[in-house]
Amino acid sequence: MTSIILSVGDELILGQTVDTNSAWISRELASVGCDIAAHATVPDDQPAIEAAIRAAAGRCDVLIISGGIGPTADDLTRQSLAAVLGVELVTDASWLEKLHEFWAKRGGTMPAMNAIQAEIPAGATIIPNTAGTAAGIDAVWQSGDLKLTCRIFVVPGVPKEMKAMIAGAVMPFLRANSGGAVILSRTLHTFGMGESAVAEKLGDLMKRDRNPSVGTTVANGFVSLRVNCRATSLALGETEIATMVAACRAAVGDLIFGEGEQTLVGQIVELLKRDGEKSMTVATAESCTGGLLAKMLTDLPGSSDWFTHGWVTYSNKAKHERLGVSSELIDIYGAVSQPTVDAMAKAARRLSKSTFALAISGIAGPGGGSATKPVGTVVIGLAYQDPADRVGSVTTVRTFNFSGDRDMIRDRAAKMALTMLRFHLLGKAMPF
Amino acid sequence: MTSIILSVGDELILGQTVDTNSAWISRELASVGCDIAAHATVPDDQPAIEAAIRAAAGRCDVLIISGGIGPTADDLTRQSLAAVLGVELVTDASWLEKLHEFWAKRGGTMPAMNAIQAEIPAGATIIPNTAGTAAGIDAVWQSGDLKLTCRIFVVPGVPKEMKAMIAGAVMPFLRANSGGAVILSRTLHTFGMGESAVAEKLGDLMKRDRNPSVGTTVANGFVSLRVNCRATSLALGETEIATMVAACRAAVGDLIFGEGEQTLVGQIVELLKRDGEKSMTVATAESCTGGLLAKMLTDLPGSSDWFTHGWVTYSNKAKHERLGVSSELIDIYGAVSQPTVDAMAKAARRLSKSTFALAISGIAGPGGGSATKPVGTVVIGLAYQDPADRVGSVTTVRTFNFSGDRDMIRDRAAKMALTMLRFHLLGKAMPF
Repeated sequence: MTSIILSVGDELILGQTVDTNSAWISRELASVGCDIAAHATVPDDQPAIEAAIRAAAGRCDVLIISGGIGPTADDLTRQSLAAVLGVELVTDASWLEKLHEFWAKRGGTMPAMNAIQAEIPAGATIIPNTAGTAAGIDAVWQSGDLKLTCRIFVVPGVPKEMKAMIAGAVMPFLRANSGGAVILSRTLHTFGMGESAVAEKLGDLMKRDRNPSVGTTVANGFVSLRVNCRATSLALGETEIATMVAACRAAVGDLIFGEGEQTLVGQIVELLKRDGEKSMTVATAESCTGGLLAKMLTDLPGSSDWFTHGWVTYSNKAKHERLGVSSELIDIYGAVSQPTVDAMAKAARRLSKSTFALAISGIAGPGGGSATKPVGTVVIGLAYQDPADRVGSVTTVRTFNFSGDRDMIRDRAAKMALTMLRFHLLGKAMPF
Repeated sequence: MTSIILSVGDELILGQTVDTNSAWISRELASVGCDIAAHATVPDDQPAIEAAIRAAAGRCDVLIISGGIGPTADDLTRQSLAAVLGVELVTDASWLEKLHEFWAKRGGTMPAMNAIQAEIPAGATIIPNTAGTAAGIDAVWQSGDLKLTCRIFVVPGVPKEMKAMIAGAVMPFLRANSGGAVILSRTLHTFGMGESAVAEKLGDLMKRDRNPSVGTTVANGFVSLRVNCRATSLALGETEIATMVAACRAAVGDLIFGEGEQTLVGQIVELLKRDGEKSMTVATAESCTGGLLAKMLTDLPGSSDWFTHGWVTYSNKAKHERLGVSSELIDIYGAVSQPTVDAMAKAARRLSKSTFALAISGIAGPGGGSATKPVGTVVIGLAYQDPADRVGSVTTVRTFNFSGDRDMIRDRAAKMALTMLRFHLLGKAMPF
């Protein structure tokens, strides 16, 4: 199967938005062995969209069109597709009802212009939108002589809505039509060491032209191992990829926290809950991360099982008033210091009566750095029960130096705090 | 002048690399009034590259091709262009000498395969590469009947080398041929109302084929207005776009919080600091957003000027222990209720001694919803000084219903809390 990906939008053509959809869709399509012949982008202009659809439909088996199905006058993809197919737009009554329900639930009435989001070319079917109001379109184009056929999927340009439709409607179609050949992929995630350090651990497993192949990618501080396997059947592929994944796990060890959709917080929650019904709990006391660590710990539903209290003590005064960190301690050692963070972690654990407490204080920048504590210096503390004392805490406190801008430093600091907790729960020393 | 941007590379087609070059080149071209008809991407495959060049050259005045001029076997752009032009590749002696010098300077000899980087189609001229070894190509294509002409520029895919060649060779050509024409863009951001509601406010300003034109885009809950203006001179364009931006501001009003790179938090910080040196301050008490609101308020450096204390009181117990919200109140009205949020906001303001306090409690889902409080129900409160009482607080509390998944609901709730504060600081009622 050959596919073409067509993106529609003035913002793309004018360079105001970088097209990340095409790359994402390409990766999905490639994963089921679908060849991608081309990407194309055209403006919100009906003759241009029509010409692009006509040119592409004759050259591929599957055409994915993203964008141009919003409710406003500059959204012209559905009209263009109807024109190319030589049919009228018709209203899908079921989706129109959904739209009315959507607004009614919010206590309003649907603006008249949104009715067009339930319109599709006659003969096509809708693709339900689980994250927005525009219905997707699933249509079939045939050449005048009926010799060529192209399946056309229209999805929104909004990445979240697009991804849900590709996963829900396009991928099942492609899998059902791939003729048995598969490209399987598995992804293992790590946090804490750089890409080249992970690659060194993998050694020969990363050699070019192996099948299954192993590559590394970096995103948001996570270094992920991508294992790809081409096989003539699913069963064969699954055996081969499982062997390679096991070899990767043996080489990289506990640095791997999860696979596929698994998250760092997800693994921590599993570990916190491993002793049965009642979860162990974590509290947070944050300075430079400003709530980001607490946000991550509550990313998953049911968070109240493991997260109850968090403090954002951004100022020294707040550290003193809320957590009782003595002003003298801060004066002597500074807010970004092991003694201060130790005191923050212990206080957060004591006040919240949590099993653990994580505390973070650092210099996220861009200002505020010094020769001894440059921007990126972050102190992280983990408080847990003193085995010799049922009430008191002991803490593990470490100082890190993260690179990047303010956003990156805050993000990496919060993830490193989670990683400290993770290794503690595993009963292992951090390998870095 | 009309242009097409063609990108060449397997890594782009397979989605392993996101194409940022096309967006960058588009912005450059648009800035001198060059129309962009399309972007296209093809794999490292000679028939595909040739077909794409043929299809594009007949449809535009300027074709920019990036990628496929490295030294290795999979770099086929120069061969493809020569084939389309019906000429041989010839060595540019001056560039070959440069290549030899380049390696000699590094104490080595040029690998044989790099000699191809001095080859260009006969009749074309090279574009010097100031940041790498591949010579760019400047060529002219003509249709068989000589009626159509297209200027073709080939540049490397490496962004740094590409940018230097576009600036050094392409832009001077376009400026010399633009007759002074420009396209100017400005973007205005809103939060709080849907895209169709914003479009309704804009009314006729969004009519197609106007110049300047107005379009809307949605990203992360923000609805942005994009104003584009074509003009025959920069001075004229600046006047026309300023008039249209003023018309948009008049139509949409205070819903607009910023322009271009300005952020919602950025405007709030400006408002908090408007009274001179000492900033007004904000504290936060968060339940379902779990620290995200505090994180947003500390996204900007210098946050300690306006943000000192935040509480993440995810459990009812934490709301009671940390903020003194009475257990009876929570029992009677529930944790997601206006009385509870009112109490959270007042307590956060009192304990932190901040000018304002924002409190959020809601059902982020996916579980926990009920018929009366479905997933997406979020109560937000803003506490501020009671004008009749120098110590006490009054609060504005509102209940919202956000759609989407857990991430979206939490994100929109935090942004809505910021928006409530923003309108309070503006001294205006929220327009929704």
